[in-house]
Amino acid sequence: MTKTPDSAVRSYIDQHRAAFLDDLASWLRIPSVSADPARSGEVRRSAEWLAEKLRETGFPVAEIWETGSASGDEGRGLPAVFAEWPSGEPDAPTVLVYGHHDVQPAAREDGWATEPFEPVVADGRMYGRGAADDKGQVFFHTLGVRAHLAATGRTAPAVNLKLLIEGEEESGSPHFAALVRRHADRLACDAVIVSDTGMWAEDTPTVCTGMRGLADCQIDLYGPDQDIHSGSFGGAVPNPATEAARLAAALHDADRRVAVPGFYDGVVELTERERELFAELPFDEAEWLRVARSHGTLGEAGHTTLERIWARPTAEVNGIWGGYTGPGGKTIVPSSAHLKLSFRLVAGQEVEKVREAVRDWVAERLPAGIRHEIVFPGATRPCLTPLDHPALRSLVRSMGRAFGQEVRFTREGGSGPAADLQDVLGVPVLFLGISVPSDGWHSVNEKVELDLLLKGVETSAYLWSDLAGSWTPGEDAR
Amino acid sequence: MTKTPDSAVRSYIDQHRAAFLDDLASWLRIPSVSADPARSGEVRRSAEWLAEKLRETGFPVAEIWETGSASGDEGRGLPAVFAEWPSGEPDAPTVLVYGHHDVQPAAREDGWATEPFEPVVADGRMYGRGAADDKGQVFFHTLGVRAHLAATGRTAPAVNLKLLIEGEEESGSPHFAALVRRHADRLACDAVIVSDTGMWAEDTPTVCTGMRGLADCQIDLYGPDQDIHSGSFGGAVPNPATEAARLAAALHDADRRVAVPGFYDGVVELTERERELFAELPFDEAEWLRVARSHGTLGEAGHTTLERIWARPTAEVNGIWGGYTGPGGKTIVPSSAHLKLSFRLVAGQEVEKVREAVRDWVAERLPAGIRHEIVFPGATRPCLTPLDHPALRSLVRSMGRAFGQEVRFTREGGSGPAADLQDVLGVPVLFLGISVPSDGWHSVNEKVELDLLLKGVETSAYLWSDLAGSWTPGEDAR
Repeated sequence: MTKTPDSAVRSYIDQHRAAFLDDLASWLRIPSVSADPARSGEVRRSAEWLAEKLRETGFPVAEIWETGSASGDEGRGLPAVFAEWPSGEPDAPTVLVYGHHDVQPAAREDGWATEPFEPVVADGRMYGRGAADDKGQVFFHTLGVRAHLAATGRTAPAVNLKLLIEGEEESGSPHFAALVRRHADRLACDAVIVSDTGMWAEDTPTVCTGMRGLADCQIDLYGPDQDIHSGSFGGAVPNPATEAARLAAALHDADRRVAVPGFYDGVVELTERERELFAELPFDEAEWLRVARSHGTLGEAGHTTLERIWARPTAEVNGIWGGYTGPGGKTIVPSSAHLKLSFRLVAGQEVEKVREAVRDWVAERLPAGIRHEIVFPGATRPCLTPLDHPALRSLVRSMGRAFGQEVRFTREGGSGPAADLQDVLGVPVLFLGISVPSDGWHSVNEKVELDLLLKGVETSAYLWSDLAGSWTPGEDAR
Repeated sequence: MTKTPDSAVRSYIDQHRAAFLDDLASWLRIPSVSADPARSGEVRRSAEWLAEKLRETGFPVAEIWETGSASGDEGRGLPAVFAEWPSGEPDAPTVLVYGHHDVQPAAREDGWATEPFEPVVADGRMYGRGAADDKGQVFFHTLGVRAHLAATGRTAPAVNLKLLIEGEEESGSPHFAALVRRHADRLACDAVIVSDTGMWAEDTPTVCTGMRGLADCQIDLYGPDQDIHSGSFGGAVPNPATEAARLAAALHDADRRVAVPGFYDGVVELTERERELFAELPFDEAEWLRVARSHGTLGEAGHTTLERIWARPTAEVNGIWGGYTGPGGKTIVPSSAHLKLSFRLVAGQEVEKVREAVRDWVAERLPAGIRHEIVFPGATRPCLTPLDHPALRSLVRSMGRAFGQEVRFTREGGSGPAADLQDVLGVPVLFLGISVPSDGWHSVNEKVELDLLLKGVETSAYLWSDLAGSWTPGEDAR
């Protein structure tokens, strides 16, 4: 019987599975909590451990990249790891894998059944902080590329393979965009593969095709120079708390569409095919509400819950405050009131245009006697991979081979540093993630399903050959 | 030359002016700060001082009334003073004067030019805490009734005169309604005269003809069981901060009328004559805005600023809060949000009906998935004296004689314990106040204008004869 490439990959994985899991467990023992300054040494140790492991894997280049300073020589940030393995083929596409090696804080007393930094394998799972988010998902690429070489007989990957593994993702990636800009030449690629997301469910392999962008703002409204008596003045002067409420209320119309003029300009609407694909997913709204801890659904008319969170731009009141908030009553017209709003953006929306629309909308709605300030602290652009992109088709094909199942499509409602890679490097971003909702990201008893982890290895093993064989970068429209 | 009653009153006042001011200064030296538990003894000393002074004045009954317990024998509250001087005439009306002997806190270091409890006479004014609010305005009645007797040759007032001088007004009158209910028999009267308000200006004597009522509430809105991620769930679940804002925004329509259905039911509208009287007042909107520390006017369409604050019911957002209010951003759908609202009420509105209207309005406006609670901690009813009430005409006539000027009409936008007297005793409330806006109530360098103080004495001296001669209680409609 001829050995198919798939069975060669599977054999290789089977042979190396035990060592692979041991290695992952070693990495999980390093408590690389980026949010804890006392553990910055552990984040560095994690970076060094990974760089060494990538060299062992065969990457000819595996470097620690400092962050947080313009020079790049010495940073106040936490280190990233960059690795590179050229294909040797003149026309091979270049692919950059993104992930992160830092983890969320965790302590046994938070409610963990086992020590979070002492990984335990049980019931086909590996428990430990970082098992799914994101060390496990970074690490499957190491065995994946080895399996790819073993099955193809190559000595270098079929694509020019680069890895950029960040050390500050769980702290909001404060230096990531600068890092990418500084090293844009070395990071140059034809596509980014982000391995820091998840799938629909254990039995429903999916590929994420986009993330929403984000623009947030704070609006400060000022009325009287101090809180004034509502008996003496109420009903005759503008009240900034009322005006803050009127702004927040006017964010949405009766159909819960965002009512800021111009907000939807340029929005890439869902195609009928995309809506069908969403609708085919086995979505259980009651279960979704349970996870959301919400007691009802509410959103833009004419769209399903999945469309609302994945593919529609939204506006949210994250915070509102003004006036007296203590016990009992205080009959005042408050001096000031404040709003924190955030807008999730989808492909086609430009951050600067949205900001301008919000600025104009606020200025036009406020009455005389209310002064306002508005600041937009940050923004992340949306990203979206077209369903017919050849690299996406290649990814879906590879995942389908690994899972032996049809692969469906999801999106992410949230926003992430993937957009920085897309924007700075000017390439499409694809998502290869094998985590599932029960994995406990940012929560207690984080785990990874070992079967899925090995499907990730297998997908990675198929992907580089498939990409090299089916995609000529430059022939696709972004 | 025949001595007119007016010249007799004026001569008497001139003769006793110095002793009267000395006595007032003695009273002002007692720091009867009801808000300061350390000074509760001073509040008691102030009550005892006043009771003794009323006995000296001629009141056959002058008692300390304890507050804060149902028995009335021993209170945890601060004492009031009750005094009574029967007329002796069988058909004489009975009048109850209301004021208070407690004062706001004051300390030299707050910015006073002189010691607040060491009164100083300078430039025709007496400076000291309580000079205007309210000891001076209570005290003018003592010399007033003596001048009334001297000018008429009577040995008892022409009306049955009662005084109730509270000791907790500056602490929110927590025991006042109970006190009035407990002593309703002894407080029985045909009209209440409140001497705890002010006039338009030194050169514009005015009588206040009403105060607005007040109903306040807190509305708590609950959405998800905890703050949830706005990327994962935003735009698809109800947001309690958005709903709180939508409620607050829906309080007013585009004309800034209160949009709660039924809110205006029963409202006694201003007559054309009342609107004319308001419009005749020398109102300087720029100066009013300066005092309000507001940078614009805004209120119910079709009404002037004075109409809005004095005679129109209003709704005000006193506080709003929900979600993240710290530095930076937090992309959440908040778990809860809260509103503190207050409604100023005018004659014809019933507190319970307004509460019911607000309850219904809130319940109808909230989407599924938002749970709410609403509480109404307290309420004060509005009061309004009809312009053609004979007692009011008598008061205006007496004040006109004292000031030698036409007396105009104002109202108070605020709400006060006067409403308790009106409601429990079932009689009209009139306002005889001689304070002016520059008197510094609750502020530093509180003072009373001595000329105005003596006009108060003179008004009081004329009032009892005028009332007895021109009013037969029971013949007026309330």
